[in-house]
Amino acid sequence: MSPAYFASAAEHRAWLATQAALPKGFRTGVTRLNFTPAEAPKPAAMTLTLIALDKPTRDFAAVFTKNAFPGAPVIVGRYRLSSATLGAILVNNKVSNVCAPGGVETAERICSETARLLGLAPEQVLPSSTGVIGWRLPAAEMIAALPRAVESLETGTALTAAEGIVTTDLYPKIRRADLRGGSIVAVGKGAGMIEPNLATMLVYVLTDIAVPREVLRPMLTRVAGETFNSISIDSDTSTSDTVALLSSGHVPCPNEAEFEAALTQVCRELAEDIVRNGEGVHHVVRVKVSGAPAPAAARALGKAVVNAPLFKCAVAGNDPNVGRLVQAIGKHLGVVAPGADLSRLRVSMGGVEIFADGVFLLNPATEEKLVAHLRRAEMYSSAPDADGFYAPRISYPPHRHVVDVGIAVGLGAGEATVFGSDLTHEYISENADYRS
Amino acid sequence: MSPAYFASAAEHRAWLATQAALPKGFRTGVTRLNFTPAEAPKPAAMTLTLIALDKPTRDFAAVFTKNAFPGAPVIVGRYRLSSATLGAILVNNKVSNVCAPGGVETAERICSETARLLGLAPEQVLPSSTGVIGWRLPAAEMIAALPRAVESLETGTALTAAEGIVTTDLYPKIRRADLRGGSIVAVGKGAGMIEPNLATMLVYVLTDIAVPREVLRPMLTRVAGETFNSISIDSDTSTSDTVALLSSGHVPCPNEAEFEAALTQVCRELAEDIVRNGEGVHHVVRVKVSGAPAPAAARALGKAVVNAPLFKCAVAGNDPNVGRLVQAIGKHLGVVAPGADLSRLRVSMGGVEIFADGVFLLNPATEEKLVAHLRRAEMYSSAPDADGFYAPRISYPPHRHVVDVGIAVGLGAGEATVFGSDLTHEYISENADYRS
Repeated sequence: MSPAYFASAAEHRAWLATQAALPKGFRTGVTRLNFTPAEAPKPAAMTLTLIALDKPTRDFAAVFTKNAFPGAPVIVGRYRLSSATLGAILVNNKVSNVCAPGGVETAERICSETARLLGLAPEQVLPSSTGVIGWRLPAAEMIAALPRAVESLETGTALTAAEGIVTTDLYPKIRRADLRGGSIVAVGKGAGMIEPNLATMLVYVLTDIAVPREVLRPMLTRVAGETFNSISIDSDTSTSDTVALLSSGHVPCPNEAEFEAALTQVCRELAEDIVRNGEGVHHVVRVKVSGAPAPAAARALGKAVVNAPLFKCAVAGNDPNVGRLVQAIGKHLGVVAPGADLSRLRVSMGGVEIFADGVFLLNPATEEKLVAHLRRAEMYSSAPDADGFYAPRISYPPHRHVVDVGIAVGLGAGEATVFGSDLTHEYISENADYRS
Repeated sequence: MSPAYFASAAEHRAWLATQAALPKGFRTGVTRLNFTPAEAPKPAAMTLTLIALDKPTRDFAAVFTKNAFPGAPVIVGRYRLSSATLGAILVNNKVSNVCAPGGVETAERICSETARLLGLAPEQVLPSSTGVIGWRLPAAEMIAALPRAVESLETGTALTAAEGIVTTDLYPKIRRADLRGGSIVAVGKGAGMIEPNLATMLVYVLTDIAVPREVLRPMLTRVAGETFNSISIDSDTSTSDTVALLSSGHVPCPNEAEFEAALTQVCRELAEDIVRNGEGVHHVVRVKVSGAPAPAAARALGKAVVNAPLFKCAVAGNDPNVGRLVQAIGKHLGVVAPGADLSRLRVSMGGVEIFADGVFLLNPATEEKLVAHLRRAEMYSSAPDADGFYAPRISYPPHRHVVDVGIAVGLGAGEATVFGSDLTHEYISENADYRS
């Protein structure tokens, strides 16, 4: 658990450093390089992040985007699931290597070179890329930089790796759990194109607790469903999303259920961190759905609410526009459950009931409470620069408050909690002028 | 068809006046009133728009929102479909009468009073409301204003009605077709919360051509599916959407197919007008999908593209970010058609092929062409005021250009054309501060 408040970026970073100790058996390294893309006139910078195991492990798992046009690293990553063992992950930002000519071959070539430097076989290296879609990887420059990445490998902290993998993130993200002499440490990047299944979300979970791959793989699928697949910043699903989990096996696993609970906690906290640092996010919105016909239906309803643009804008403006909230619920249920009996549906915000028995429960006192709840959850308010460009005004998470929405559907026992965000000028500024 | 360019609001209005002649048998009237909502401290203004037939007609049709929480006027409107005849429509803006306590009773009471003044029965009056969700209608003030609305009824122009029904629209919208001595004239309002099924979209189509209700009703469902249900501004589905069609029957119908073609044209043009005047819209995006397994699949794919926030932001910035376009296609197809063979999928923008055989076809010359295509379709560019608020900078449609996206899926013969828009600072300014 992070503290309730951070007062500065320095304080946040100091706390991250306390969370960053690597599990036994892992080293990380980072290096930077410059290149000129074939597709664009301006030079660009890339960071290479290398995560290496002291000894290849058979106990690894990964889940990938469901986008029909996955990036080359995702295609290669799916092959890697049948590798006997894995020894390293090489991550680059800036270029996502998605649908670029020869993308898979380039990814394999870079894996081969990485493997050679580490004394591994090519199929023991998992590639991972995030950044502009459509550009080709600068293979020659990356290969030239690889020896520096290998030289920089060190035990100790995951913080440099957490910093190395970011794109438009405002700050690095790390979560950990310590468990009977071992630990689980996860680093992640997110920011935009986040809906799950998964997102432009790269997450690497490292543990020294020994869990066999046969157990680890279905466990990661379950845990990702409850955590990373229950967040949405803008409903877009990246072509690159990857969650990879590696166990170095140094510490015996006390109990698989206990491990899964710790893994779930780490992933849930990191997922919430990713939303909180979403592009332009001022408010994190948490929707707890109960009484749905099934858990999947509950999650789908929660997603529909956090993806409704007009509700998101209202939250951005600290406007308790409960009409837009109920509109979003009604749009979704009108499509997936036409004719369902919604007479028992109840909606609350900030613990205040606002809709029951088919009508709104609104009055000036309620409105005041809702406004106060929204203001408390606001991380910063917008202010444009002289050109009308809105840049985010924080470089750390100033608090952990959320906008709390409760929806009791009254149709069954399905429950889910979904995290989302508001929609702000900063999101538009970031994304209407992203590449220039 | 409208001219390719309007140079000013006055020119646009002059053109609208040439389109506005009412079909035989109709009168329209408008009046304004002030009230203080029970739910909010500030006084508000409302416009009442009355559309009356000289003689009640059995030949009417209507389609309504699929939102699971329809407004009271939609609930009453569904009852009205079984009325023997209809004689008038009463439209108010400012308050949508959705899930407000006693909403249906209030709507019926106002219909009764309207009917009394017009010499009709209550079930011959269709109520229609748009505006804030959750507020109660100011029944006493509306009833007091009704005699003025009735007195203002006149034949001649639909322009005052087109102006009366708007909310955040920047200008009134009218489309017409003339057909063998008769005409079809449609007025509509839209702006936000537009996805179809339908939208905060109110459309009234008036015709003097005689088409029996048994033919008219399935025809309106078909036509609305191809037109109003094929647009999306922000993916939200309003609780109030209504398309109502009334025939006064003065002119014999030459041919039902000819009538349907004219009705389709009127509705398609009005639907595009509604998108072009969507909240904060700088670019209209037209997605033509071909080669889908079925027409419904084609339409769903088109909607997924025009609803993808990152692609919408890129369009706003005149950025030909084709990666985000293919991401949106891949997200949708990854969910609805996992494992489908997409090797024949081709994507174009502005007539330029940008994706084929699984890879992007990108180079600086292509990029230049795409940027030129986006700039040509831009209606205005953003400029904030001193407080960082972005207000729309047009009060008329300056041209009819669109951003043209073509997607050939290569899986079947299903086709659809979908209209959508970009996502801009003006949308955020409008919707993060909508009620205050």
